[in-house]
Amino acid sequence: MASNSFGTLFRVTTFGESHGPALGVVIDGCPAGIALSEDDLLPELRRRRPGQSDVTTARREEDRPTILSGVFEGRTTGMPIAVVIGNTDARPSDYEHLRDAIRPGHADETFAGKYGHRDHRGGGRSSGRETVARVVAGVVARKLLPPDLRIVAHAKRIGPHVASRFDEAEIERNPVRCADADVAKEMVEYVRSLKERHDSTGGLVEIVVRNPPPHLGEPVFAKLKASLAHAILSVGAVTGFAYGAGFRGAEMTGREYVADRSSFGGILGGISTGEDLRLEVSVKPTTSLGDVARKGRHDPCIVPRVIPVLEAMVAITLADLGLRARAAGHLAPVDPDGTA
Amino acid sequence: MASNSFGTLFRVTTFGESHGPALGVVIDGCPAGIALSEDDLLPELRRRRPGQSDVTTARREEDRPTILSGVFEGRTTGMPIAVVIGNTDARPSDYEHLRDAIRPGHADETFAGKYGHRDHRGGGRSSGRETVARVVAGVVARKLLPPDLRIVAHAKRIGPHVASRFDEAEIERNPVRCADADVAKEMVEYVRSLKERHDSTGGLVEIVVRNPPPHLGEPVFAKLKASLAHAILSVGAVTGFAYGAGFRGAEMTGREYVADRSSFGGILGGISTGEDLRLEVSVKPTTSLGDVARKGRHDPCIVPRVIPVLEAMVAITLADLGLRARAAGHLAPVDPDGTA
Amino acid sequence: MASNSFGTLFRVTTFGESHGPALGVVIDGCPAGIALSEDDLLPELRRRRPGQSDVTTARREEDRPTILSGVFEGRTTGMPIAVVIGNTDARPSDYEHLRDAIRPGHADETFAGKYGHRDHRGGGRSSGRETVARVVAGVVARKLLPPDLRIVAHAKRIGPHVASRFDEAEIERNPVRCADADVAKEMVEYVRSLKERHDSTGGLVEIVVRNPPPHLGEPVFAKLKASLAHAILSVGAVTGFAYGAGFRGAEMTGREYVADRSSFGGILGGISTGEDLRLEVSVKPTTSLGDVARKGRHDPCIVPRVIPVLEAMVAITLADLGLRARAAGHLAPVDPDGTA
Amino acid sequence: MASNSFGTLFRVTTFGESHGPALGVVIDGCPAGIALSEDDLLPELRRRRPGQSDVTTARREEDRPTILSGVFEGRTTGMPIAVVIGNTDARPSDYEHLRDAIRPGHADETFAGKYGHRDHRGGGRSSGRETVARVVAGVVARKLLPPDLRIVAHAKRIGPHVASRFDEAEIERNPVRCADADVAKEMVEYVRSLKERHDSTGGLVEIVVRNPPPHLGEPVFAKLKASLAHAILSVGAVTGFAYGAGFRGAEMTGREYVADRSSFGGILGGISTGEDLRLEVSVKPTTSLGDVARKGRHDPCIVPRVIPVLEAMVAITLADLGLRARAAGHLAPVDPDGTA
Repeated sequence: MASNSFGTLFRVTTFGESHGPALGVVIDGCPAGIALSEDDLLPELRRRRPGQSDVTTARREEDRPTILSGVFEGRTTGMPIAVVIGNTDARPSDYEHLRDAIRPGHADETFAGKYGHRDHRGGGRSSGRETVARVVAGVVARKLLPPDLRIVAHAKRIGPHVASRFDEAEIERNPVRCADADVAKEMVEYVRSLKERHDSTGGLVEIVVRNPPPHLGEPVFAKLKASLAHAILSVGAVTGFAYGAGFRGAEMTGREYVADRSSFGGILGGISTGEDLRLEVSVKPTTSLGDVARKGRHDPCIVPRVIPVLEAMVAITLADLGLRARAAGHLAPVDPDGTA
Repeated sequence: MASNSFGTLFRVTTFGESHGPALGVVIDGCPAGIALSEDDLLPELRRRRPGQSDVTTARREEDRPTILSGVFEGRTTGMPIAVVIGNTDARPSDYEHLRDAIRPGHADETFAGKYGHRDHRGGGRSSGRETVARVVAGVVARKLLPPDLRIVAHAKRIGPHVASRFDEAEIERNPVRCADADVAKEMVEYVRSLKERHDSTGGLVEIVVRNPPPHLGEPVFAKLKASLAHAILSVGAVTGFAYGAGFRGAEMTGREYVADRSSFGGILGGISTGEDLRLEVSVKPTTSLGDVARKGRHDPCIVPRVIPVLEAMVAITLADLGLRARAAGHLAPVDPDGTA
Repeated sequence: MASNSFGTLFRVTTFGESHGPALGVVIDGCPAGIALSEDDLLPELRRRRPGQSDVTTARREEDRPTILSGVFEGRTTGMPIAVVIGNTDARPSDYEHLRDAIRPGHADETFAGKYGHRDHRGGGRSSGRETVARVVAGVVARKLLPPDLRIVAHAKRIGPHVASRFDEAEIERNPVRCADADVAKEMVEYVRSLKERHDSTGGLVEIVVRNPPPHLGEPVFAKLKASLAHAILSVGAVTGFAYGAGFRGAEMTGREYVADRSSFGGILGGISTGEDLRLEVSVKPTTSLGDVARKGRHDPCIVPRVIPVLEAMVAITLADLGLRARAAGHLAPVDPDGTA
Repeated sequence: MASNSFGTLFRVTTFGESHGPALGVVIDGCPAGIALSEDDLLPELRRRRPGQSDVTTARREEDRPTILSGVFEGRTTGMPIAVVIGNTDARPSDYEHLRDAIRPGHADETFAGKYGHRDHRGGGRSSGRETVARVVAGVVARKLLPPDLRIVAHAKRIGPHVASRFDEAEIERNPVRCADADVAKEMVEYVRSLKERHDSTGGLVEIVVRNPPPHLGEPVFAKLKASLAHAILSVGAVTGFAYGAGFRGAEMTGREYVADRSSFGGILGGISTGEDLRLEVSVKPTTSLGDVARKGRHDPCIVPRVIPVLEAMVAITLADLGLRARAAGHLAPVDPDGTA
């Protein structure tokens, strides 16, 4: 598998750098006949966009996607769907002072070493901007999932502030995307105070998938949990993944563990049970600090903006495993005409 | 990618069920000329083997590997290496009482639903026994890694007991494989007490890779952290993965995070820096409890036996990414004869 | 894709050398619930077996397959199916005189150069014996194809002798597997005369697939014709592949070409039309001649024995593309529950 | 493998339809540090372009490639290289009369059946226009090959006219790209006469690769001959592939075959010997005839324009196998630091 592609049957290939001409994605394997337009892509791109509030970066590119292929007269054709998004707000000059700097804790270090060059313009390929391509693919992936399936993610923790309620309706009402309205206010204050000091904070994202189909995932290396871990750890800011009881399971006895089915997180033997999927993802603090944080345009807390990206990666993973499950034809008699 | 294979260039395919005739592995992509014999495989197989102490299951299969291909006159030939291990201690009758039982919290549920049948004999393909194949592949993978690279894992936590020292020499001296000799004793007592009650416990494994090469991992979906997460979550008992500051990063400010390079866990931008890799893995409690735990042969704490499996998965991942890095030829001038 | 595997969803991995302990195959992706036993494998293995007549090699290994995994109580389980076949008639001593010889026109040359070693025992991995693994996989693949689909191959040409009739019933009645009984006699005489001179001959195999399903193959690199070409050229003895009008098309005008639908060979735009598939495969003469042909055990004409191998490769390709077509769900509305 | 991608390490993904907004390619796996500009792409695009002479279609799109990613300050960065080419001369109205027509012998038939829709605008994804993306990838691939390696293809046969000389210097001097100047004239006359009758002709392309590196290709399914066959049969117009003695081998005895090393075509055991590679490819007559040929813009003989596409596919295949050979590290001692 080439390194910029993900998935087997629903296969997503992303390209582009943060300050090059454009970013894009090729989605190979989307079935024909699905309604798709550029407008469908805008809502999720807006959720990911910077400049939504003062707790995120001020960089304000307007992401306008262009579908180059794979859609004809408003429907997918079964051919690869290519979508390109121009970098209209690329200001390489903002980064010119970094031409010879290696930023501590940045991909700069390893990219320069590995590839013998670096793109000093705001991270190049390692920039979070690459994730616009994933958000586009996530919108398409969702169209392959059951209509009542919902992927709901929120900021469960930011720094010391931990949500104690999960009110889905609250999530999009506050700039940190926390499902607990009261704690959300504390989180916002906390992020603002860090921003003033040119500092940042990490956080924890909780993801719940409501009404997932059963039978997703395969033994032994395409387990649902392994595929999700791969997808989610491929996001730059992510430092950890757990499902079900997760790290709390290390402290539990077997009887405690099995007493509560939520321990399983909706996955047994690597295959979805049909119960809600429960995932937890840790996100590191932004490492562009001090002077760099002042001049470049960075987030004091990436959690709210990473949420639509994580949701997209979950959707892509489920869509791919869903097509695989259909191919395997489990539970169905072997197809008499071999293809239907 | 078919679901029972892992890796691109160093590709491992496992097969076999816990109570079928044999388990095995095909390793495709191992370069020619590497010394390899069946004896090389025994030490790691013994580390994984049950019956090593009273804190693990009493099932005592002696794992005798047979190399069927890919080795000629003591050296690898560049051809696929197939290794088979017979199930000499398979006692399906021990599981006959389970023919119609669905064990709560087991893969039984999802396998029966997805594949329309179940192998009631001790887990079939979802059994931990499948991991013998991975341990074999791990031994071969290690031969492709630099000689001074060491993959060291230990039980950092079992239930409430947490190691506070990391003395590598201690790990193989106690049955729980904890690097803190004092805490190891507490852990052993704890596991014994649970065993008497036919209960079990989860735990936490810390993995350190000493002297890893730099340049391992690729943007964006073959990031080292994503590849490791995939590899490690493919192990049945694992419920979570983190690297560097991991979940602690959710509570840290950016300044705290960058102040300590161990936060990065040896990975920046998804690529190894050459510093020690630091991983943390949560392991769930065994869910075979009560009567089942009495009759079947199960571990009250799987942590000690999962450690060599996790080490194997890390070795396999590093070997594969190492071959990929060599292919990419980064830092080298483009090869004048195109192949060397 | 590792080099010893073929297929995406129905994935076949072969291993083993001609004079090692065993050959084998892992078939990953076969759906659950299909009846399969070792006896099912014997008829095709016998068709491939040497020693069937005086026009093939005298080496007479009896191929006894053992299913190691993936079958439980007589049915596939959806888990990888591993099958091993011991090399009971391996006589490395027959080849000892070749330890330092490089046989002209053999893989010896390139294997020694590329891998820095050679297995002088009858070809090692490059031996035609590797194809027993493919024949096994072909039997399983056929079980995924429609029951009325038939893959029929015969020796259309051997040396100067060209069949002018296609009487399917004749094929298994003569040792060269030619569908024209009269020409078959000439072919047998021709092969015998070459054998006496320790010489050999090439030939042409015609393959017809009756009642193939439509919709197999995908643009642009998984075209049915490209997948078949890959599969068939992976057989050592094959030097050319064509479908439909094939090389005759080079001499035809467009009007001539479209006037006869058999020109298309059952494939348009890389996708099967549902009409019979028509393929042509050229097979080179065996290059073990003279003294080598006397001492080693080689065929004066490999065509009859390569026929079941080619049929197997066609079956494997169609099974894989059939599963892919099912996954893509073309023509079906998007599945409301995303997996069925 | 998703169906619009080719290659493992040097991986090419194409997208776009003949009359959509643009075509494009993503090249994943190109090493860093290679000089590349849009101007580098023009010469090969011009060779493929229609309207070069009266023996090809009059459609005259000017192919202007834009590099969207993977190149910074004139050199590749190791990141995916995306190149887009707009369809400036797309005139869907030319095809409006075909909205409800199914053209005999066209992909229309199978695309409509498989995908439940059709793009009547000149072939959509099945159009030869898709090959601009391959030509772009071919230019990049060539940069990974040894500087003295040359891929030389010419029209060996068009209809009844067969070249009897191979004078490389002649190839680009005549519109049919034949290496025999005298026969080229006959070919041109022949094509013109067919064009007047709104008919077309097939042909035969001979490809010679001068100075290929040895060691390219791997047993058993990544044999050089199998990889080339896959690559070349993925081109829409191609109906057959052979190497070395090819179909002539069917009529040869073993002694005749081995007497001339050109029989081997530079490949033994599926691996390149380092001798010139010799391939032969059959190309079908264009099937757009009569009225359609008058209104749409089609070639009476596609051979001259398919030549740069075939060369590109050969380059892509060799580049991918070259990177694989380097990864495998054959002949080199195992790398002491595991990555270089």
